[in-house]
Amino acid sequence: MKIGSQTHHSSAISAANPRVILVRGKDLCAELIGHVSFTDHIWLLITGELPSAGQCAVLDATLVAIAEHGLVPSVQASRMTFAAAPEALQGAVAAGILGCGSVILGAAESAGRLLADVVARARAAPDGTPGAGLPGGVLSALAEERVREERAAKRPVPGYGHPLHKESDPRVERLLSIAEQAGCSGRHIEAARAVEGALVAVTGKRLAMNVSAAIAAVLLDAGYPLLALKGVPILARTASLIAHLLEEQHRPIGFVLSHAGASAIDYDGPVPAGFTPGDQ
Amino acid sequence: MKIGSQTHHSSAISAANPRVILVRGKDLCAELIGHVSFTDHIWLLITGELPSAGQCAVLDATLVAIAEHGLVPSVQASRMTFAAAPEALQGAVAAGILGCGSVILGAAESAGRLLADVVARARAAPDGTPGAGLPGGVLSALAEERVREERAAKRPVPGYGHPLHKESDPRVERLLSIAEQAGCSGRHIEAARAVEGALVAVTGKRLAMNVSAAIAAVLLDAGYPLLALKGVPILARTASLIAHLLEEQHRPIGFVLSHAGASAIDYDGPVPAGFTPGDQ
Amino acid sequence: MKIGSQTHHSSAISAANPRVILVRGKDLCAELIGHVSFTDHIWLLITGELPSAGQCAVLDATLVAIAEHGLVPSVQASRMTFAAAPEALQGAVAAGILGCGSVILGAAESAGRLLADVVARARAAPDGTPGAGLPGGVLSALAEERVREERAAKRPVPGYGHPLHKESDPRVERLLSIAEQAGCSGRHIEAARAVEGALVAVTGKRLAMNVSAAIAAVLLDAGYPLLALKGVPILARTASLIAHLLEEQHRPIGFVLSHAGASAIDYDGPVPAGFTPGDQ
Amino acid sequence: MKIGSQTHHSSAISAANPRVILVRGKDLCAELIGHVSFTDHIWLLITGELPSAGQCAVLDATLVAIAEHGLVPSVQASRMTFAAAPEALQGAVAAGILGCGSVILGAAESAGRLLADVVARARAAPDGTPGAGLPGGVLSALAEERVREERAAKRPVPGYGHPLHKESDPRVERLLSIAEQAGCSGRHIEAARAVEGALVAVTGKRLAMNVSAAIAAVLLDAGYPLLALKGVPILARTASLIAHLLEEQHRPIGFVLSHAGASAIDYDGPVPAGFTPGDQ
Repeated sequence: MKIGSQTHHSSAISAANPRVILVRGKDLCAELIGHVSFTDHIWLLITGELPSAGQCAVLDATLVAIAEHGLVPSVQASRMTFAAAPEALQGAVAAGILGCGSVILGAAESAGRLLADVVARARAAPDGTPGAGLPGGVLSALAEERVREERAAKRPVPGYGHPLHKESDPRVERLLSIAEQAGCSGRHIEAARAVEGALVAVTGKRLAMNVSAAIAAVLLDAGYPLLALKGVPILARTASLIAHLLEEQHRPIGFVLSHAGASAIDYDGPVPAGFTPGDQ
Repeated sequence: MKIGSQTHHSSAISAANPRVILVRGKDLCAELIGHVSFTDHIWLLITGELPSAGQCAVLDATLVAIAEHGLVPSVQASRMTFAAAPEALQGAVAAGILGCGSVILGAAESAGRLLADVVARARAAPDGTPGAGLPGGVLSALAEERVREERAAKRPVPGYGHPLHKESDPRVERLLSIAEQAGCSGRHIEAARAVEGALVAVTGKRLAMNVSAAIAAVLLDAGYPLLALKGVPILARTASLIAHLLEEQHRPIGFVLSHAGASAIDYDGPVPAGFTPGDQ
Repeated sequence: MKIGSQTHHSSAISAANPRVILVRGKDLCAELIGHVSFTDHIWLLITGELPSAGQCAVLDATLVAIAEHGLVPSVQASRMTFAAAPEALQGAVAAGILGCGSVILGAAESAGRLLADVVARARAAPDGTPGAGLPGGVLSALAEERVREERAAKRPVPGYGHPLHKESDPRVERLLSIAEQAGCSGRHIEAARAVEGALVAVTGKRLAMNVSAAIAAVLLDAGYPLLALKGVPILARTASLIAHLLEEQHRPIGFVLSHAGASAIDYDGPVPAGFTPGDQ
Repeated sequence: MKIGSQTHHSSAISAANPRVILVRGKDLCAELIGHVSFTDHIWLLITGELPSAGQCAVLDATLVAIAEHGLVPSVQASRMTFAAAPEALQGAVAAGILGCGSVILGAAESAGRLLADVVARARAAPDGTPGAGLPGGVLSALAEERVREERAAKRPVPGYGHPLHKESDPRVERLLSIAEQAGCSGRHIEAARAVEGALVAVTGKRLAMNVSAAIAAVLLDAGYPLLALKGVPILARTASLIAHLLEEQHRPIGFVLSHAGASAIDYDGPVPAGFTPGDQ
C-alpha cells in the first residue's frame, strides 16, 4: 500500500555508472578523493556545495568540540552493548547514537530552532520594537520575550547550563572566537548571547551558554542548515564511539559499568517472606 | 550481578573538570578546537596520537571515498525509518548504521583481517618459501594459499567484486595512488594486489579489488588499527545519512521507496476462497 | 558527572538471589513459569499485577491485531538490514522497531493521549456543558472541541484514516466487540466513537477509526497504562519481525526490495557533460 | 544497482485488501483476533501453523522464563537511552534489543546450534558408535566429542554456567518439567543434559545448564525452528523493556545508573601538569 501523499520521485545526492560515481554533481574520484577533506565532503554532502575556508573551519571546530566528553550515558550504553554483542560493532555504535536525543546532544538542534526564531522575529520586527536603534537592542528584547515564553510553557531553554561546567563551558568562547576569526560571526551568535543575558534577567540566576547553543549559533551563522544541526553531534559522537569500542576490545569495561550501575539501585518492590536479594 | 571476568577499571580517552576537558591527554579547548581538523581528531581519538600529514591524507581519502553511493539498502532503511518516525533523527541514523554489516560495508574489516593475515604469514615465512627472493613473490604464493583456504571453506573473499563496478572500482586506483603520494604504501597494499591476482589464478575469473579492500589496505599501511577498520565506513556513511535525512525533510521519498519495494514482491502463501489481494 | 536531578535509587520490577528470581514480587519459577501465559506476564511486568481474564483477552486481541500487515516500511528496513548484516539478527529487529514512530505505529499512543484527554475533560465538565444529560452527549461535544483544536493547530487527528482500509478498518469492530465481551468497554471507546463522529461533523468527510485508535481505546478502558501504550505495537511487531527474518534466511528478498526502491527514484542533481547514470 | 543474486520475489506471511487481512493464510479478523492468544499468534507467524496446546505451553514458558532478570546491561542501556532521548521510546527499546548478542541472550541460539548438531550426529551415528545400545549412550559420547571440539577451538560452550546462579539456574528444571508435561520432551533435552555431563567429564568442574540452553532444548523438541531461536529472548526482553521504560517515566534512574558507572572507572591516560579530574 502507498502510505501518505509523497509525490517526489527523485534525489539529488548521488548517481553512478560503472566508471563514474557522482556525489552532488562532482566526480568522486576525479574531483573529491584526495582533493577535499572529510569535513569539506560532509559540508558538500549536506548542502550540495563545497564550503568556503571559513565554513570548513567552523564545521571542523564544532565537530572537534562535541566529539568526546568521557563516559557519558550514550558511551556507556554503547560499551555495554558491545560487551554483550561483540559480533556487531555497528549495533554498539547504533546504541550509542540512539542516546543523541532531545535531553542531551539534541540540544544543538533545539537551541538552533530557538536562536533561528529569535533572529527571524528580529528581522520581522517593526522599527518601534523596544530596543530598536540600540546595538543588539532588539535581539535582547526578543530573547527575553522568548525565554519568558519557554518558562511559561514549562520548557527548559535548550543550550544553557551544564552539569559539570556550571560557571562556563570552556568550549563556548573557543567556538565563538573561531567563528569570528573565520568571518562567520553574525546574528545567531548575537542571539545566543542575548538569550544568555535574558536568562539572568528573567530568572535572576546565571545559566551559562553551553556547547550545544554555541554549536548551533556558529553553524547557523556560517550558513549550515538548521534541519541538519542534529547531525553534527551525531557525527562527532560516532567518531568517539569508534574510539571507545576499540578500547573496549583491548580493555573491556562494559560489564564493570553495568555492575556498578546495578549496584547503585535497590529493589523496592514486594518481597515474599524469607527472600534476601543477592548481589545485583 | 557481575558478568564475566572483566578486570579493567579505567579508560584512557577523556577526563574533565569544570574548566578543562582532556581528550587523549590534550586540552580540548587550548590544543584541539581550531587547531586540528575533524579527521586529525578522529585519528587522535582512535589511536591516541595525532596523525602525520600522510596519515591524515589517507584517512581523509578513505572517508571521502566510502561516504556515499546512492540509495543503497542502508540509506533506504534510514529514509523509511525517518518517514515513519520523524521525531527521532537519531533513530533513522541508527537504522542506517545497522546495515553496515558483514555483507556490505563491513567488508573493509573482513578484508583487513585477510590482508593482515597474509602479511603476517609473509613475515613469518622461512627463506625456503616458494617465491622467496622474488619481488612480491612470497606474498603472491601466500595470497593464493589464503584464497584457496577461503574457497575450501566456501567463504567469499571479502573486498573483491562489486555489483556495479564489475570491471574495476574507480575508487581503488585513486586510493592506492594517494597512499603512494602520502608515503604510506606498503605490504598490505602489495597483499591486496596479490590477492586480486590470486583470485584470477585460482578461479580463472577476474574479480576486481573493490573500495573495501582498498580502504583496508591503505589504512593498515598507514598504521590505522585493524580492530577499528569497520569504524571508517560507519563514520563516513553517518555523514551521508545526515545528508539523506535532510533531503528527506525537504523532499520525502521514504514511503515511495517502501511502496516500490512492496510492489516488487508477491504473496505466495495460502489464500482462502474468494480472496483477492489489494495493492501491496 | 551527574546529569539532571534524578533522585530515585530504586526499581520495583525484579530482584534475585542464586536460588530465587522475583518478578514483580512473585517467584518466577514457582508462581509464573508454567502458570501464566506470556500475555499475563506482559501485563504483570508492565502494571505490577496479574490481569483479570478480561484484561488478558483485550491485551491478547490488540497484540494479535497489530502484529502483522505485510511489507510495511519497518519490515522492509529490517529485511534489508538483515541482508546486509546477517551476523546480527538483533540489529535487524532493532532497525524494524525504530520505524515504530509518531507517523506509523506510534499512533496508538498519540490516539491514547487524545482519548484520555477527551475523557478527562468529560469528567471535569460541569453539568451545564452542552450535551450533558444526553447519552454520550458531553463526549460528543468535547470530541468535536478537541478535533477543532487539532485542526486549528494543523495537527492530524491520530488514529483515524488508513491508506488501505479507507472505508473501515476491519480490525476496529472486532477489537471493540471483544472489549465488550470482556466487560472492559467504557468511556475511552465512547470517546473514540465520538471523535469519529466529530471528524465527519467538522470536516464533512468520513475518516474511519483505525486499529491504532481502537487499540488505545480498548486498552485504556481495560486499565492498561497510557504511558506504555506504544509498547503494544512495538511488542507485536517484534513478533512479526522475527517471522520475517526467519523467512529472510530461507528466501531472501532484502536486496530485491532495495533494488526496486532505488529503481523508483531518479537522480535530479547536477550532471557533468557526458555522464549517463547506470542502473540505480 | 542489484546487489547479490537473490532470486525470490515473494513472501508467504501476509496479504491484504481493503476488507480482509490475511496472516499466514488465515483471516486475521474472522479467525485470529479473539480466537488465539498472542503466544499462538507468535507461533503461527513464525512457523506458518497454529501450535498444539503443548507447543503453546512450551513457548509460553520460555517467554515467561527469559523476559526479566533485573538491571542487566541491556536494560541499563535502554533506560539511559530513554533518559537522554525521551521523545523516542522505540529508540530506547531498540538500544536494549541491540544487547541481545552472542555473549548474553544470543546464547539460546548458539546453544540450539550445538544441541541440534549433537542430535544430528547421533542420528547419523552407525551402530558401532561408542555407547550405541545404551540408553542415552550415543548422545553422551557425542556430547563429549563436541565439548572437546569447542575447548580445542577455545570457544566457550554456550548455554552453561551463569554469573549469579552458579550451582543451578532455577529456571532450567522448571522448563524441562513443563516440556515433559506438555509431551514435548525429546532428543534435544537429552542432548542438553548430556552436554552438562560432558562438561564435568571433560573439565572436572560443574558448569550447570542455564536458561539459554534449556530454552533451546525445549523449543527444538517442541518443533520450533532453530533459525528463529534468538527471537525468543529478543521478544521476551522487549516486553520487559516496555515495563522498565514505563518505570523510567515515573521514577527515572537512567542518569543515576550512568553516574554510578562513570564513577567506577578511572582515567589513566596522559595528564598535563596541574590537571585534576573532576567528578566523572
